[in-house]
Parts: sequence; C-alpha cells; structure tokens
Amino acid sequence: MALVKPHGKKKKLMPLLLSGAALAKELKKAKTLKQLKISSRETSDLVMMGIGAFTPLTGFMGKKDWKGVCGKYKMADGTFWPIPITLSCDPAFGNSLKKNEEITLVDEESGEIMATMKVTEKYLMSKADKEFECKNVFRTLDMAEHPGVKKVMGQPEMNLAGPVKVVSEAHYPTQFKELYMTPAQTRKMFEEKGWSKIAAFQTRNPMHRSHEFLAKIAIETMDGCFIHQILGKLKEGDIPADVRAKAINTLMDKYFVKDSALQAGYPMEMRYAGPREALLHALFRQNFGCSHLIVGRDHAGVGDYYGPFDAQKIFDEIPAGSLETQPLKIDHTFYCFKCDGMASMRTCPHQKEDRLMLSGTKLRKMLSEGENVPDHFSRPEVLEILKAYYAGLTTKVEIKLHSHAEGTHTQK
Amino acid sequence: MALVKPHGKKKKLMPLLLSGAALAKELKKAKTLKQLKISSRETSDLVMMGIGAFTPLTGFMGKKDWKGVCGKYKMADGTFWPIPITLSCDPAFGNSLKKNEEITLVDEESGEIMATMKVTEKYLMSKADKEFECKNVFRTLDMAEHPGVKKVMGQPEMNLAGPVKVVSEAHYPTQFKELYMTPAQTRKMFEEKGWSKIAAFQTRNPMHRSHEFLAKIAIETMDGCFIHQILGKLKEGDIPADVRAKAINTLMDKYFVKDSALQAGYPMEMRYAGPREALLHALFRQNFGCSHLIVGRDHAGVGDYYGPFDAQKIFDEIPAGSLETQPLKIDHTFYCFKCDGMASMRTCPHQKEDRLMLSGTKLRKMLSEGENVPDHFSRPEVLEILKAYYAGLTTKVEIKLHSHAEGTHTQK
Repeated sequence: MALVKPHGKKKKLMPLLLSGAALAKELKKAKTLKQLKISSRETSDLVMMGIGAFTPLTGFMGKKDWKGVCGKYKMADGTFWPIPITLSCDPAFGNSLKKNEEITLVDEESGEIMATMKVTEKYLMSKADKEFECKNVFRTLDMAEHPGVKKVMGQPEMNLAGPVKVVSEAHYPTQFKELYMTPAQTRKMFEEKGWSKIAAFQTRNPMHRSHEFLAKIAIETMDGCFIHQILGKLKEGDIPADVRAKAINTLMDKYFVKDSALQAGYPMEMRYAGPREALLHALFRQNFGCSHLIVGRDHAGVGDYYGPFDAQKIFDEIPAGSLETQPLKIDHTFYCFKCDGMASMRTCPHQKEDRLMLSGTKLRKMLSEGENVPDHFSRPEVLEILKAYYAGLTTKVEIKLHSHAEGTHTQK
Repeated sequence: MALVKPHGKKKKLMPLLLSGAALAKELKKAKTLKQLKISSRETSDLVMMGIGAFTPLTGFMGKKDWKGVCGKYKMADGTFWPIPITLSCDPAFGNSLKKNEEITLVDEESGEIMATMKVTEKYLMSKADKEFECKNVFRTLDMAEHPGVKKVMGQPEMNLAGPVKVVSEAHYPTQFKELYMTPAQTRKMFEEKGWSKIAAFQTRNPMHRSHEFLAKIAIETMDGCFIHQILGKLKEGDIPADVRAKAINTLMDKYFVKDSALQAGYPMEMRYAGPREALLHALFRQNFGCSHLIVGRDHAGVGDYYGPFDAQKIFDEIPAGSLETQPLKIDHTFYCFKCDGMASMRTCPHQKEDRLMLSGTKLRKMLSEGENVPDHFSRPEVLEILKAYYAGLTTKVEIKLHSHAEGTHTQK
C-alpha cells in the first residue's frame, strides 16, 4: 500500500523554499527590494508553503481564489481549499507598487527576510469583505471574543497576491530541533516503516488520558498514529510547545508501544476556525502523508462558536473526493468508573456521575494551585511535568508581585 | 452510503428457500423421491443457502468447483470461495442414481426433509482427494485431534453436486427465535438504522472484557457492531448458544450504548479451519450486509494448528477485490494494570506480569469449581450467568454419578 498522494492536481509535493545557489542569489536580490513587514501568521504560512505543507499553493491568494475559498471551498482553478491564505498590507504601500513588482517579505517580530514575492494582484478588503470572510470561515463576527475574527478584522485594508520564493524557515528548525519535520521527511519516515494507514493526531495541548485514548484507538486499527503538534503562536494560557513536547514524549515513553506513534510539529498558527480548520488540518496532513485525521470533540474550536461535532459533520458536507485524507471521527472520551476504563459517549451507557470529566479551566486551576488531579484523568508522569511548569509560572508571578510591592525593580 | 453488495457477480441475494405454493408442491414431490440422509453440517449449509447467506451458490459444489476452491480459492466460474461446500454419500447410493435424477435430502438427526436436489454430477472422493482438501483447507491431516479434519476424512467416498431447492430452515427459526435472522432481515435492519460501516463480531463464546473491547473499538470508529453468533453444532465443552446469548444480552444491556451493537445468530457449523474459515466468515458477513469482520487472535482456530495471526494475514494473500467485506484486524487484547484499562499488544508497552490473561481452560476450571475469577477479566453480571450454567452441569454430573453408583436409574 502506498501513502496518500499530496493535495492538488499534480499529486506531488511543491515546496517553495529555495536552497543552495538559488537561495543565495534570491537573498542578495531581496535586500534590494521594497520590504513589507508581515505578521507571525503570515510568516508561519510562508514556512508552510516553503516546506510544501500547503501544496499546491504557489503563493498568497488573489481575489478570485479568496472569494471561492470563502464561499465554496474552491480556488479559481477548482482546487479544494477551506481557509484563505492571504497577505495584507497598508493600501499606501500597495498603491506604491508597480504591476508585477517584486517585494521582500520580512517577519515583523524578528526582522528576518522570509521570502520574495512577485505582486501580480492587489485588491482592497473592505469591512464588508472581511465580514464575508469571517462569516464564512469562523461562522461569527464576534471581534471581541473570537481570536481568529479579531486578527482578520484587524488586518490592513489591502491584500497582495502572487507567487513567492521562500528563503527562510524562521526560528522553527532551530527552536524546535526535535520536532520540526517537513512533509518530505515524514513521508520518507512513514515509507521506511512500511506505514500507509496513518492517523494524524492534531494537538496544541499536552495529552491526557482522553487524548491518549484517541491515539490508541487509531493504533489498534491502523499502521500507527502521527502525533502532530502545532508550533506556531497560540492564544494566551495555552501550554508552550516545549513543555507540551516533553509531556508527550514522557507519555509515549511510558504508555505507548515503541514506534506505534511518532511525534513531530508543524509551523502554523491556529485560526480557531473549528470545522473549516479541521478541513485545513486534514488537507495539509495529506501533504505530510497521513491517510486519516483524528477529529474528536470541538476540533480547533474556541468558546462556544461551534457545535461539538461540527468539525466532524463538515467532512460530509464538502464535495466527495475533495480530500484523500479522511476524518477518523471519535466521540467525546473520558474515564468511566462503571466501564472500568476509557470510553466515549458511543461506548459508555452510564451516567454523568460515573464519568470523570474535568474542564481545561478546572485542570489548569488544580495544576497551578498544586491541588491533586483525580486518578485516571492523566498519567502521573505527565502531571508532574505540568505541575513543575505551573510552579515555575507561579514563582515568576510572585517575584513580579513582590518586586512591585517593594518598588525596587522594574517590572518586565 | 450504501451497504456492501452481496457476494458474487450478480451482486444480489440469492436465497434458495421456497415459500408458498412452490414450497407445498416441492414438499409433495420430495416425498416421492429417493432420500439421502445428510449430516448436521450439510443440513446447516443447506439452511445457509436457503436464507441467501451463501450467495451466489445454487447448490452443492461439483468437482471443478471443489478443486478450484481447495487449491485456488476459486470456483470454476472465477467466483472467490474459500471452503468447499459439498454433499457426500455412499457410492452405492450415488451409483443407483440416473443422470439428473432428483433426490430428497433428509436431516439424519431430525428426519426432516430439508431440500430437493437435482444430481447433475457425482464424483468419487479418494483418500488422496480428502487429504488434498484437508491439507489446503485445514493445513493439517491430523484426524485424531482436529475436529474439521476428522469430519472430512470420515465422510463417505462420493460427493453429489447440483442445484438445490430448500424447503426447511430446520430447528433454527424456532429454537433460536430471538437470534435467528436472514441476510435480507439484517440488511433491512441496518438500512433502517442508517448504518453502512458495520463490523461483524464472530463469536462462539460468551463475551468477556477482551471481546467487549474488540466490539467497542469497532463502535468507536464505525456505525456499529453486529455481534453474530454461530448457532450450529460446536465441539464438546463449548458453551451452548442459549447461555451464550443470555450472557451477551446482559453484557449489552449493562455495558453498551443502546443500539450501538446488535445481536443475531446464523445457522452454520464451525469447521475450525482458522484462516480459511475467517475468509468464509467475511464472505457470508458481506451477504448479511457487514462492511467489516473483526479478526482478532486465532480466529476460528483450534489447538495449535494456526499461527495466532494467520487468519489476519490470509486477507493480504488472496487476490485484491476477492471480497468487499474487509478484515478489522486487532491484536491480542487484555486488561493491563499499568495501562489502567483494556489494551492490546499494539498499545500496551508493559510486561507480562502487568497484564491479566486467563486461558479458556483456566477460566472454565475456575467457573466450574466455583472459584472467583479475578477482577477486570469479565463483567460480574456475565460471570454470574456462566457460574449458574456450570453449577447446573455439575449438579447433573453428580446426579448421574450418584444414579450409576446405586444402579437404580438408567443413565441418559
């Protein structure tokens, strides 16, 4: 059995990252071009294009692609795509550009040159356009509470489109040495193991028993599970990637059969677009070589914007054949005392009081206050790592408060 | 999504059971024909043909079909089939028949008329022929210990072939009122529930935690599980169907979400042919409408004749496209104290001493001697039913022994 083919008509990976002489030449040229500072989301999307994770994109989307993707999940050439990948700029900058002018894209945080881009199209994004995008992609216009809507509505009023040449992978390969892998690398790894039926497990959190259970259901019935964590920016309060990776490594070491699950990370930022983002998660997992994406309860959601299983249902709503990679849909999972083990709403017939359920908020409170988390919720080895992390946070906060009270040090 | 299509080129169920006026007419004629007494295995195969479970068979197999099935899993017309379905008779009887003579098939145990058959072919089965069959189907010639080999080698030396008209379902519909279902009925039931991805769980035993786990893995990822028990004759020491059904009903009632699993039975006898029988199990489950067959450790095996996963491997050895129904392969399952729940060799990295494993022999000994079975092995409600059954057996044996000792009653 072979791996799933990369997304798009050509069915092959299209990484846009230059190397060798081409890279040196492009970098030299980049220094001579007009520069546009881009957001961390745009930077991370460039890295996704660079490594071929966003195959078959050749650059940021033009107006027709943007509109088709928002309205009908389709780019102008008919390729399935669920969330627009766009680049915004101040109209003053855009208007200063000649037709087909090449520009340099610079990460606004690090100041690093990320790519060059031939601007083949510029289009204004009115408030109505942004609202059209948000309504379709996020299903809400709530700027105050939805982090994805806030970002889109806060973008400048013009989008630039055109092919890009990526010249950097930003901080990802160095900061996440152990985790960062390209689609070409994961495909090679899967092939070497003889895997073809692979379920990707998307995560932006450490894994507790319920997550372990999802991964293990996949392992019972497939070649293996690919635990794939997001390395891009998260919302406040989320556990940082290095702590998460340490917790997951420990879990895999103590509770998984060697080589039944593999861990890696990818350089993207969460949009918190729930169902639409689940589709994007499946799409780029296809590029990474995974035949399935585990889709549990409230996948890629935030707040109460999406029904708990909207991200499963959407796979039945898109045209058949849109993606080779399929969802592995699993219901809400938990430990049940009467079942005497892990179960889901599909397999446990018992009552609420028989089940151990903790909200993320409750768990964070317990961990940060050093309270004992109830048995069966998480592996003790994982909790130890998280407790240490929260203890560190608390210490920092206490020091800060202390300094403040004495008025002797500057707060940072 | 639609159900899998029935097996064979026509892709529709072909039940051979007559009804109404045709049945009455055939029964009348049957009384005037030469009669052949047939074994319980042959009777059960006739009922399988009667209800369409052996679609597309039209009767017992001729020599070309028999040879092709044994050697290459293929009938003369190219249809995939893994175990020969044949009818044997004494050569004296066979030789007395004219070409194309119709005969009546009578169950040797009940004396009931089961079918009429037009004998279009008769062929001798030498010892070498039987050995060819056993070597291919059972992978052994061990007559002393292998119940399937014993039956084939003990059959008379001639096979009769030809189309049958089935006139009875034997004792199955009355004795197993609650369980007996035809493929047309199960397909209708699945369609009414909107199911299409269905895993059949084959069983000839009551279900303990490890079996429950297999069924629940299927339920987590598919529309539902079809717990399908064999109603034909078993080997000595197996739990009778009514006790088994009661135990399974109790388990489903207490530990399964309503309607996530359905229970029924089918009128076939075990061959104990391991891998080959797993293929037959998948084939007729396709007729019953199941897209998958759960194949665990040592499926349909007996003794040590087959490697524990030969019945999984064989699905990769037959030509692609032989069956629509696919195996859901699951490794050896058990309760693990370190995992704190059910697991398999694919998901538990711990040691032998961390796992709770009991052989069937050990369990039977514990149950019949009233010993306590360790926690986590089986549900207490299931054990109660089995203990009551074994207690009844013990009582009978004691009474028998007692009567014998006193010499006052006839043993039965």
